[in-house]
Amino acid sequence: MKYIESKKNDEIKQLKKLSATKNIRKTGTYMIEGFHLVREADQYEQEFVKLLVTEKYEDDRLVKKYHDIAVTISEDVANDLSETKTPQGIFAVIKVNEENDLTDFSGKWVMLDDVQDPGNVGTIVRTADAAGYDGVITSLDSADFYQPKVQRSMQGSQFHLPIYRMDINRAINLAKKSQLKIYGSQVNAKAKPYNELTKIDNYALVMGNEAHGVTKEVLGETDENIYIPILGKAESLNVAVAAGVLMYGLQTL
Amino acid sequence: MKYIESKKNDEIKQLKKLSATKNIRKTGTYMIEGFHLVREADQYEQEFVKLLVTEKYEDDRLVKKYHDIAVTISEDVANDLSETKTPQGIFAVIKVNEENDLTDFSGKWVMLDDVQDPGNVGTIVRTADAAGYDGVITSLDSADFYQPKVQRSMQGSQFHLPIYRMDINRAINLAKKSQLKIYGSQVNAKAKPYNELTKIDNYALVMGNEAHGVTKEVLGETDENIYIPILGKAESLNVAVAAGVLMYGLQTL
Repeated sequence: MKYIESKKNDEIKQLKKLSATKNIRKTGTYMIEGFHLVREADQYEQEFVKLLVTEKYEDDRLVKKYHDIAVTISEDVANDLSETKTPQGIFAVIKVNEENDLTDFSGKWVMLDDVQDPGNVGTIVRTADAAGYDGVITSLDSADFYQPKVQRSMQGSQFHLPIYRMDINRAINLAKKSQLKIYGSQVNAKAKPYNELTKIDNYALVMGNEAHGVTKEVLGETDENIYIPILGKAESLNVAVAAGVLMYGLQTL
Repeated sequence: MKYIESKKNDEIKQLKKLSATKNIRKTGTYMIEGFHLVREADQYEQEFVKLLVTEKYEDDRLVKKYHDIAVTISEDVANDLSETKTPQGIFAVIKVNEENDLTDFSGKWVMLDDVQDPGNVGTIVRTADAAGYDGVITSLDSADFYQPKVQRSMQGSQFHLPIYRMDINRAINLAKKSQLKIYGSQVNAKAKPYNELTKIDNYALVMGNEAHGVTKEVLGETDENIYIPILGKAESLNVAVAAGVLMYGLQTL
C-alpha cells in the first residue's frame, strides 16, 4: 500500500480542497471521516474513490476490500485532513450520491427553500431520516449537502434516503404532477395549525429561509399553508426544530 | 455622554472579557447586542448596568431613558465588541436574571442534564418559550445560558421565561416535591412512545447529553421514560430537535 507521510504531498493538498463546495461539485466526490461513517458508506454501497487510513487500520476488513484504492497516511496527514481535534485516522473519498431523476415520487418529502445554515440543512436531513420520510430536496440556494458542516449534522443520513438539489419551483411542479399535496410552512397565525390537519400519506412539506421563511412565490403554489402555534412569547422557532415538530407532528396525526 | 473612541480603552477591554462564562458568573452581568434584543431587555424590565451606542443611536428613546449609564462608542469599538460581522452599534450590559429560589414550581418544565452544545441549549430555551413551557433548568455541567453562542440561539427567550442553573438531582427532587411528573427522554425503543402518553399539566421533561443521553442515575429517578419512535434508519435525533418534537408533542396530545 502506498504511504503518504507529508501533508505537503500533492494528493493531500488536492483532497483538502474537497472541503469547498465548488470542488465537491466539480469532481463529483466528497470526503467522509471516521470509522462509523466510512463503514456505513460501504454498507450502503456508496462508490468509493479512495480510502486513506493510518497504520492502525491497515489490517481492517474495509481496507482489504478497498485495497486497490487504499493509501496509508501518517498521523500528521490525518491531523491535517481532519475536521475534528482528535481524528480517528480513517477517511474515504466517495461519489456524490444525489439522484438526478425524480422517478417514483411518492410518500413524504421535505423541501428546503433557501435554508442557509449548514447545521440546519444537515439536521433536517437527519430528522427526515429518523421520522421515516422518503426524501429531501433542497433549492439551489440552500447550503450544499456535501459541505463538511452539513455532513457533520447529517450523520450519515445521506446514505439512508434520497437527497436532491434542484430548482425549487421545478421540484414543486414535479411533486404536484405526482399527486403529492404541498404544505408550505409559515410563521403566521392565519395559516392552519399543523395539528388540525388530516393525516395523508403523500405530501411535500416546504420549509423556508431562517430569516425570511418560504418565499411568497412558493407559498402561492402550495395546497395548504400550515404553522406551528406559538404558545409563549418567542417570535418563531429555529427552522430545524420547526421541521422536526412538523415532520413528527404530521406522522402522528 | 462619555465618548470612547479606542478599543484599547480599559472599560472596553473589561467588557470584552464578558464573553467568557467565568467573568459573566463573577460579575453577575452579561452583554447583549442589537437593537431588537436591547429593546426587549428594557420591555421585560431587565436591570441595565451599561448601554453603549454609536452616534446614530444617541437620540433614541432608550438612550435617553438610560442616560446616566449610556456611553457613546466609535464604530471601531462597536466592531471590536460585536459578535457579528455587521454590528448595529448598540450593546447593553445587563444583570444575569437567573432565579435563585424555585417557588411556584408548577406547569411544564424542561430540564437539561449535561447538554454541552451552546446552540442546543439556546435553541431549547427558545423552543420552550415558543411551546408555552413554564421554565428551563440546566444542570451545572450544561453550556451556560449567558455565553454568547447560547444567547444567539435563545434570541431573547431568557427574558420571557424563568431559567435556572442548579444541580440536576436537586432540581428533580424539588420537582417531585412539587408534584410534577418527571419524564426522562431516552433513545430506547423499550421506553414509552411519547405519543402514547396521556396529557397532563404538570411535568418536567428531562433531555440529556448529545452523546450519552440522560444519565442512568437520573433515568432511575423519573416517573416514566419516553422516546421518539425512529421510523427510518437514523440512530437518533439532534437533542434540540428531539426536545422540540417532545415539547410540542406533549402539548398536542
